[in-house]
Amino acid sequence: MTVQDIPSLIQARYGATASLGATPTGAAVGNSTLETLLQHSSVRNFLPEKLPEGSLEIIVAAAQSAATSSNLQTWSVLALEDAVHKDKAAFLCGDQDFIRAAPLFLIFCADLDRLTKVSAQHELRGEGLEFTEMFLMASLDAALAGQNATIAAEALGLGACYVGAARNKPLELAELLKLPSRIIAVFGLAVGKPDPAKPTAVKPRLPQKEVLHKETWHGEEDTTNGQSANLAEYDVTLATFNAGERREGVPAWTQRSAKRIETIESLHGRHVLKDVLQQKGFNLR
Amino acid sequence: MTVQDIPSLIQARYGATASLGATPTGAAVGNSTLETLLQHSSVRNFLPEKLPEGSLEIIVAAAQSAATSSNLQTWSVLALEDAVHKDKAAFLCGDQDFIRAAPLFLIFCADLDRLTKVSAQHELRGEGLEFTEMFLMASLDAALAGQNATIAAEALGLGACYVGAARNKPLELAELLKLPSRIIAVFGLAVGKPDPAKPTAVKPRLPQKEVLHKETWHGEEDTTNGQSANLAEYDVTLATFNAGERREGVPAWTQRSAKRIETIESLHGRHVLKDVLQQKGFNLR
Repeated sequence: MTVQDIPSLIQARYGATASLGATPTGAAVGNSTLETLLQHSSVRNFLPEKLPEGSLEIIVAAAQSAATSSNLQTWSVLALEDAVHKDKAAFLCGDQDFIRAAPLFLIFCADLDRLTKVSAQHELRGEGLEFTEMFLMASLDAALAGQNATIAAEALGLGACYVGAARNKPLELAELLKLPSRIIAVFGLAVGKPDPAKPTAVKPRLPQKEVLHKETWHGEEDTTNGQSANLAEYDVTLATFNAGERREGVPAWTQRSAKRIETIESLHGRHVLKDVLQQKGFNLR
Repeated sequence: MTVQDIPSLIQARYGATASLGATPTGAAVGNSTLETLLQHSSVRNFLPEKLPEGSLEIIVAAAQSAATSSNLQTWSVLALEDAVHKDKAAFLCGDQDFIRAAPLFLIFCADLDRLTKVSAQHELRGEGLEFTEMFLMASLDAALAGQNATIAAEALGLGACYVGAARNKPLELAELLKLPSRIIAVFGLAVGKPDPAKPTAVKPRLPQKEVLHKETWHGEEDTTNGQSANLAEYDVTLATFNAGERREGVPAWTQRSAKRIETIESLHGRHVLKDVLQQKGFNLR
């Protein structure tokens, strides 16, 4: 991954013809943290090398440094490095080979078990733990931690790829990992040294005006923020990107996205999430 | 905020007497991105200054650079800068004055409305959108984006504080922000220039061994990973930290946490989340 300057990265992020509507603040120039954030791309091609000693510990320290709601720290992470164990986990996570190839597979969990124990210790009721809110809080805590882990890995010259397929077979994965009640995997993160022979490009995202709203929501009737035009623009931007990457036959983003959520089957097993959560002790009141 | 070296930051993050069990990898030394991650602390005291021109745009570009599940980009963000509007939002978000004082209040939303439109455009069913899985995916997407926004703000010399209380009165907030169906605020983020007269310290987190599990879960019976001992150790670490900060009368972490989730009332209105989501078009099948 070559370090690029902020304006080039912004252009790559929104597509060659896009503009931001404002020049980035002067403080952004030469800021290596911003460069790390902006040049993110998911890495699925890893060298067959172990991580440098101490990498896991610093990545998890960064993860724990993320904010956590009311300092409740309602998450935990499992680190899989054993090849046989990782192979079994990869099979349950969409049977994806890049997980097998990664020297480290982190599995981030929403963890309400710890607070259950803490409640019992102080002989309090823990009634709040029974609500949908607390599962959401725990999932958000895990995500903030996971994103810090990702940035830390990238700052160390490593690459990473999230694995939402950790929710494809949640009960089987929980059994493999020996997760107690009230702990569930919300996503995985494969980490390794990127293969320099297979570099990854910064993928364009939706136009900023489609995602960012000032003060209140802008609807279709607002001509400065027309969603249909934004989405049509993005279909073109992503098609141009795919052509540049020599990816052929990729459907337009809107079409591909609509297919991705068309039916129950498109969820790859994740339609059972609510039942599984309840089975694992998340009451979801 | 003074920049500190990695070992000092690790020590601050786990408390003076803690150790990591491994020396951070050499690649960590002098790495300013890792330093930014490790020295995070929530900032609630802001100078009454507007943000430098272009700050919002680069923060949102960083947020959009975070990974997003299947590139579906199921989130949106509102930027509140108008004082009167921000005051109303602050009132609905736990009536917290630091939100009023922040020049920028970002509200990150789970957004399944965009994919609903995309489905309709291609005359597909969008059945997947009806499931709990998709609300979770959208919330995770929003959280990854929010954490990148936080790191970007900190990289620019700004400070930030998450606002989970954006879920205290979700219907009223949705009305204030004019959110369509299938869009809901999952958290806020107050951003501003930190007041140097009121510096914030790195807050210790749980021992790493309490949060990080190798290969499979370690239970209470595993003497190298005994949860009771970990939690007792953290109660001491945090008490020592609070004494150093001259915060008196703060209950132990385990006790405070148990109180925080003791009853429905401890959720500050968030016990209605499930009903509100359904009312706002998230079917949660």
